[in-house]
Amino acid sequence: MKIVVDMMGADLGVLPIIEGVSKALSTQVFKPVLVGDAKKAKAFISKDLVSKVEIIDCTDYIRMDEQATDALKRKESSIFVGMEILKNNGADALVSAGHSGATMGLATLRLGRIKGVSRPALCTLMPSVGQRPSLCLDVGANTDCKAEYLLDFAILGYEYAKNVLGYENPTVGLLSNGEEDSKGNLITKEAFKLIKEYPLFCVDKDSPPIFKGNVEGSDIFVNSVDVVVCDGFVGNVLLKTTEGVASAIAGIFKNTIKGSFGAKMGAFLLKDAFSLLKQKTDYAEYGGAPLLGVNKVVIISHGKSNARAVECAIYQAIKAKESGVAEKIALAFDHKKNEGSTTQDPSA
Amino acid sequence: MKIVVDMMGADLGVLPIIEGVSKALSTQVFKPVLVGDAKKAKAFISKDLVSKVEIIDCTDYIRMDEQATDALKRKESSIFVGMEILKNNGADALVSAGHSGATMGLATLRLGRIKGVSRPALCTLMPSVGQRPSLCLDVGANTDCKAEYLLDFAILGYEYAKNVLGYENPTVGLLSNGEEDSKGNLITKEAFKLIKEYPLFCVDKDSPPIFKGNVEGSDIFVNSVDVVVCDGFVGNVLLKTTEGVASAIAGIFKNTIKGSFGAKMGAFLLKDAFSLLKQKTDYAEYGGAPLLGVNKVVIISHGKSNARAVECAIYQAIKAKESGVAEKIALAFDHKKNEGSTTQDPSA
Repeated sequence: MKIVVDMMGADLGVLPIIEGVSKALSTQVFKPVLVGDAKKAKAFISKDLVSKVEIIDCTDYIRMDEQATDALKRKESSIFVGMEILKNNGADALVSAGHSGATMGLATLRLGRIKGVSRPALCTLMPSVGQRPSLCLDVGANTDCKAEYLLDFAILGYEYAKNVLGYENPTVGLLSNGEEDSKGNLITKEAFKLIKEYPLFCVDKDSPPIFKGNVEGSDIFVNSVDVVVCDGFVGNVLLKTTEGVASAIAGIFKNTIKGSFGAKMGAFLLKDAFSLLKQKTDYAEYGGAPLLGVNKVVIISHGKSNARAVECAIYQAIKAKESGVAEKIALAFDHKKNEGSTTQDPSA
Repeated sequence: MKIVVDMMGADLGVLPIIEGVSKALSTQVFKPVLVGDAKKAKAFISKDLVSKVEIIDCTDYIRMDEQATDALKRKESSIFVGMEILKNNGADALVSAGHSGATMGLATLRLGRIKGVSRPALCTLMPSVGQRPSLCLDVGANTDCKAEYLLDFAILGYEYAKNVLGYENPTVGLLSNGEEDSKGNLITKEAFKLIKEYPLFCVDKDSPPIFKGNVEGSDIFVNSVDVVVCDGFVGNVLLKTTEGVASAIAGIFKNTIKGSFGAKMGAFLLKDAFSLLKQKTDYAEYGGAPLLGVNKVVIISHGKSNARAVECAIYQAIKAKESGVAEKIALAFDHKKNEGSTTQDPSA
């Protein structure tokens, strides 16, 4: 298994990326193809590591303040070079913590969408108090969505939950402004009908339903459903809000603990709760966000990824490739076409 | 000052409403007009309280599972009766923890919109680690919005922050999927331009800007801006997500503390942090949500309101009435019309 790792454009520079690769190599067998500034990288790569990696030198990259659309013209940039390696079967998956818009754009245009998928979607595991975190998509690839896109996201998420996360009988919910069937905006109301009637989600009467209807923002952290479907604008707000609340609460504790010895003792005695909390809300542990619906495995990591986040994103890439999720998604969309769903094939 | 309090349709029944009224009466001078089942209410009203309140008996109310549109035909329902009292100047404000859709619909149709306001918006204070919590609107009155509505929400929120909350130089942000000016969906991108160019928000070059552009979900809890503008679908997701994350985190602590004596000790030593956290994330403390843009003061409380929430909602109603916010909003929209803003008067 070969995995392209984009070393460029991440907020914390090259070091955490090399460290993450190194950690992943200590537990998994794969060949990292490191794309980026070879000189910078070599300063951080140990003698032991150098024999285990392949380095493709290129110094250009898409800066965070540049337009995603620039990426298509920048053929010398790390993400373009890396994507071409993946496209030409020089690797099995790609991980990048660089400009996410550039990565999504290039993946969609250079690797291509799986036949029948209207729009690829960015998919992420949400922090959760339960054992089976919810998967949420789209969290940023498509800011303006049609109802049919949301149906496709439901299928993409369902296949990922089943095949990559190994969830038995995954359930699907549509993010809305209330649980009642009548709730929603114009697009989610239309999507509700499409998802409800879609054959994949119509099980026999005796089985529990796969599509659980509308869910609310608060349902996500208690695992009411496994797959939460929304447009990329709402999904991004959801993700950032979650980060914001968790970090604001952590801030309250930090400030109190800093000021008093008694509170420090208290924090020590509550260390199990704090460590569980850290684990449950630490994005690094959840890895990156797979871009589902493109023809290969692409994992988009947080721009602020630390070594642990890069390491987890690599594990995710390996798992996604091994599970054959892209092929399973292709099969699901082939069925969609053949079953003559009410939605048109938007790639036609 | 007379305040109509709807006693019906709340999740926890009549008792917390009576208790909330009683508590508010112990600190503020006002006359509560309690609308609802008089027999039920009298069972909870003390001898001392009975002389201080006016009770309007009506037993019908809009159940949570009924359609908001039913409210207009149900002239005997508590919310219809209460709204008519307010409309006919029999009271200065109304507080309800019943069916929020019914209250919003009746307020809009019976009290009427302030001239020039395209859509009234539901407005709420968000939990915050800072001293000056952010105000967020719309959080549920309008699931599908045009860009012009969002401009109106910005004006409504700005006036409320300035006049009712007493914020000096309040700032405004547009909730989006990134901070850069280029971020947003089709509607927020259009709204961005309208708000940026709107005269009220165009201060001279030497003053700090009022409109701070796009903000993200995570900005809300650190008070990056005072007024956060979004459509009612996104606002509802934001609100529920915040509740969900805070309650999931509280759940982690509760479970740990339940299981061990040491953890109980730890929680005791950290009691300052926990009480601050409770205070910052307890919706009861923030009162209800004013419906801004209608001709009178209407406060919509959470269906699950406890006595403290009802009490705080009454304080909010008193403050809103005393500040003359409805009149100030009317003035702001009168200016809007006269300044020949690029937006058409949608009430025309």
